[in-house]
Amino acid sequence: MRTVYHKQIAELTAQLGEMCGMAGAAMKRATQALLEADIAAAEQVIRDHEQIVAMRAQVEKEAFALLALQQPVAGELRTIFSATPIIADVERMGALAVHIAKIAAREHPKQVLPAEVRGCFADMARVAITLGDNAKQVLMSRDLQQAARLHEQDDAMDDLYRNLFSVLIDQEWKHGISVAVETALLGRFYERFADHAVEIGRRVIFMGGGALPAEDVNH
Amino acid sequence: MRTVYHKQIAELTAQLGEMCGMAGAAMKRATQALLEADIAAAEQVIRDHEQIVAMRAQVEKEAFALLALQQPVAGELRTIFSATPIIADVERMGALAVHIAKIAAREHPKQVLPAEVRGCFADMARVAITLGDNAKQVLMSRDLQQAARLHEQDDAMDDLYRNLFSVLIDQEWKHGISVAVETALLGRFYERFADHAVEIGRRVIFMGGGALPAEDVNH
Repeated sequence: MRTVYHKQIAELTAQLGEMCGMAGAAMKRATQALLEADIAAAEQVIRDHEQIVAMRAQVEKEAFALLALQQPVAGELRTIFSATPIIADVERMGALAVHIAKIAAREHPKQVLPAEVRGCFADMARVAITLGDNAKQVLMSRDLQQAARLHEQDDAMDDLYRNLFSVLIDQEWKHGISVAVETALLGRFYERFADHAVEIGRRVIFMGGGALPAEDVNH
Repeated sequence: MRTVYHKQIAELTAQLGEMCGMAGAAMKRATQALLEADIAAAEQVIRDHEQIVAMRAQVEKEAFALLALQQPVAGELRTIFSATPIIADVERMGALAVHIAKIAAREHPKQVLPAEVRGCFADMARVAITLGDNAKQVLMSRDLQQAARLHEQDDAMDDLYRNLFSVLIDQEWKHGISVAVETALLGRFYERFADHAVEIGRRVIFMGGGALPAEDVNH
């Protein structure tokens, strides 16, 4: 009985990691769709999101069943207690990738982003995808120091996001209102993706026995 | 012992409702700050958010302690299991109100919004605040039918949000890029506030014994 239980806990952790990996892959593809006007990539992100949604429902159900049937304690209780908010974060990361893919698909074959912000977006995407990868890693490794570092890694995103707005607002923008608004929202989707990865880091610290570090209220 | 336990569960529910009420009050004040260029209201929203953040940490701790010490079952287990994601939603609602307040404060004494979108924002605010109030009510009442209706009430927000973008993009906009970008982001903050209220409705349905209804992936 206990062996089955420990297998289930390990499986829950593996599923959280897998979902996080799926969200990261979605963001990678959405960026490909956005920067290369790649319609196939965009359509795949939109299609694949159903898997994340289905997995969310499944894993939440399993976490609740573990809690109800096994009366876990200590570290295992912390893991199960944290699963639901982590799943919500991961699902949101996937949804943000879908938003990006949908804009790329809607504008196809046109390039959504003007040349002068494309580099900034490539950088934001790199930071977002790295943060997603690192969130997945710390979910699996429970390395608390690495989990705490996610917060610092997000500083790069904040700089890039601010920089994007200075291009949009302060410099001479020649691409009209519609493109400016779309560019701003796209930037926000990358920035929020990174925030959710940081939030997963916070939850992993709690899983490992730490207090929940305060969330940064500036996002 | 069990009496203390039931009192704690009731208190947890009351605290969730109270936090939701605080987020709703913050949104009301942030809207006052935005639409009336009311700097005192903006500053109060920013200042008061610390209370929501502190309460989040406190209530999460209490929920975990209840789970660890009381081994709750059935409806009480569902309540405690749902508390953490609900708290995350409520905290986010408060943070979105802070975003709005900060923009109002930064631009003060200037009006942020041009006259032709102010009516739309008043409507979005009304829908958002109503959804927040209803989320609080269903948290307290556990009225599952009312909880399910939150999703339909959000349709009005989606229409307003689309309408805002049609004003920004399709019509003759004379207020420049910077105001357009700010207006779009402000619109998104209201729309996301409403989404989190809907998400609380989903969680209440789960608390009451229902399955978690699928989240709308379009947000």
